Amino acid sequence: MTVGLGEFGRIRAYFAPLAGPGGLGLLDDAALVACAPGRQLVMTVDAIVAGVHYLPDDPPDLVARKLLRVNLSDLAAMGARPLHYLLTTALPASHDDDWVARFASGLGEDQRRYGVDLLGGDSVSTPGPAIFSLTAIGEVAEGAEIRRSGACPGDRIWVSGTIGDAGLGLAVLKGGYATLPAAQRAALAERYRLPEPRVTLGPCLAGIAHAMADVSDGLLADLGHICEASGVAATVAVESLPLSPAAAAAIATAPEARARLAARARLAAMGDDYELVFTAPPGADEAVASAAAEAGVPATAIGTIASGEGVHLVDEAGDPVAIDGTGYRHF
Amino acid sequence: MTVGLGEFGRIRAYFAPLAGPGGLGLLDDAALVACAPGRQLVMTVDAIVAGVHYLPDDPPDLVARKLLRVNLSDLAAMGARPLHYLLTTALPASHDDDWVARFASGLGEDQRRYGVDLLGGDSVSTPGPAIFSLTAIGEVAEGAEIRRSGACPGDRIWVSGTIGDAGLGLAVLKGGYATLPAAQRAALAERYRLPEPRVTLGPCLAGIAHAMADVSDGLLADLGHICEASGVAATVAVESLPLSPAAAAAIATAPEARARLAARARLAAMGDDYELVFTAPPGADEAVASAAAEAGVPATAIGTIASGEGVHLVDEAGDPVAIDGTGYRHF
Repeated sequence: MTVGLGEFGRIRAYFAPLAGPGGLGLLDDAALVACAPGRQLVMTVDAIVAGVHYLPDDPPDLVARKLLRVNLSDLAAMGARPLHYLLTTALPASHDDDWVARFASGLGEDQRRYGVDLLGGDSVSTPGPAIFSLTAIGEVAEGAEIRRSGACPGDRIWVSGTIGDAGLGLAVLKGGYATLPAAQRAALAERYRLPEPRVTLGPCLAGIAHAMADVSDGLLADLGHICEASGVAATVAVESLPLSPAAAAAIATAPEARARLAARARLAAMGDDYELVFTAPPGADEAVASAAAEAGVPATAIGTIASGEGVHLVDEAGDPVAIDGTGYRHF
Repeated sequence: MTVGLGEFGRIRAYFAPLAGPGGLGLLDDAALVACAPGRQLVMTVDAIVAGVHYLPDDPPDLVARKLLRVNLSDLAAMGARPLHYLLTTALPASHDDDWVARFASGLGEDQRRYGVDLLGGDSVSTPGPAIFSLTAIGEVAEGAEIRRSGACPGDRIWVSGTIGDAGLGLAVLKGGYATLPAAQRAALAERYRLPEPRVTLGPCLAGIAHAMADVSDGLLADLGHICEASGVAATVAVESLPLSPAAAAAIATAPEARARLAARARLAAMGDDYELVFTAPPGADEAVASAAAEAGVPATAIGTIASGEGVHLVDEAGDPVAIDGTGYRHF
């Protein structure tokens, strides 16, 4: 039997160095968060379970970074700038100090990247699989938050970056798309393993976007959440979906035009993109382009909001395209 | 096989009614927290695991209420007033809708009691035991927070309420203290099952207490945390520890004086009291008494802070008393 650092030792060795000033060295009962005048705080929490949300033998630093990033994506979707986080770890005995050290090292790397710090947390033991819960805290000017409920008929629908890469990446990791070049397979897998939350674009869209969500359940599902919250309908043109070169190559492996259209439609039902889907009035096209340029992330217009309900995917002729993918529930 | 409500259905049925205005109906990517001018927010997180922190067949409403209360106790220990919370639930398939409904009902009851509301959360499935993580948010005037690190030589040490009841209650629940009257056994067990966080007293001590912690690991251990953070030593008079009538009766079951002294000392090493231990200058006796009266919770002076290190338990003659209980690590 090897004797490890124990809970307090791990906190001191691995997590205390991640703490910001408000974390009080992780030595107190709670943490302090200042709030500048005219700002409000934005909070979200997401949890992951070993064997459910990630593979038990995934590298610990990647597990930590993905956990942090999916939460930062939720903040970005409100137009908020990320500030801090709290972390709960529930670990089985099989996770030794080295595992925790590598997990904390991944957190440290992404902390520096995104300019956030650790406020506090809790560590518990479990006889079950490892579970992590992260609470992220950001800030936005009072009244400047972008909710899901603000979409208006006539709004254009936009999405950042490219769609479907993460879903295809998961398929690649399971052995799919074996005929694609190795570099494209790697690019898709990377999008699944380590999403890039749009933390810069989100806040740039304050005052421009009417409604916003991040694409975690799938573009159509998350757009469906916006429609439901706003009481509107959405029409999305399948041909306008922005694809990466690797995703376009994956689509091109389908044998004929109708199968390629169906494959493209399925991308809109795949999750884990962590792009931003948002609506803005037609007059805001230039402002959206300018925000996207400032953030260094492309934004593509993919459809329009109308009165009614539901999300409707259409082809170039305006005819409905059926979705046979998973993750999409018609609202 | 019975078909349950599913994740979204459970959120809508059981948790959305608990959401405050900042929770946006639990329909958005994140929640909003306003922060009044001159105030700062205080945050803490605590997690519990079925079979580790509570018994798997404990009533779900009690599990929820204890989880909320231990977090509110951490806020009180900083002198903060509780406002909101976020909740992560990781549930095995054995926890059906009824279990979740009863859990949420317990939360609702204590929400009303303590004046807090739900901001958001995450629900995940796990093949392991149920795990809950709760992030609590409170507020305190800027600079008015009471940290662990402020204790000064010469300070008097105070503790709220009574000490050791929860530890004795756990022993009772395991079949111990069978000779005590049923009412006293029940009183002790209740202190273990449902702690009473000192949410009113904590904020009343702002500007009075130099340092504070809540008693979760045990009076001596938590006082040890204060001493370590403050760089001071503490001496506690074992005879001055405030005991409930039931705890006094439990102590009296020991056969002779030395065993009774040892039993009393062990109470100071037992955890889960969720009382507040704090230090204040000797001139603040009246202010402490007045704060305690305002909060309706007794506060008892139990010792003094001096330069040096460690926590020293002494008898009436000033001689050291050995601790053979668990939960106490000498710092």
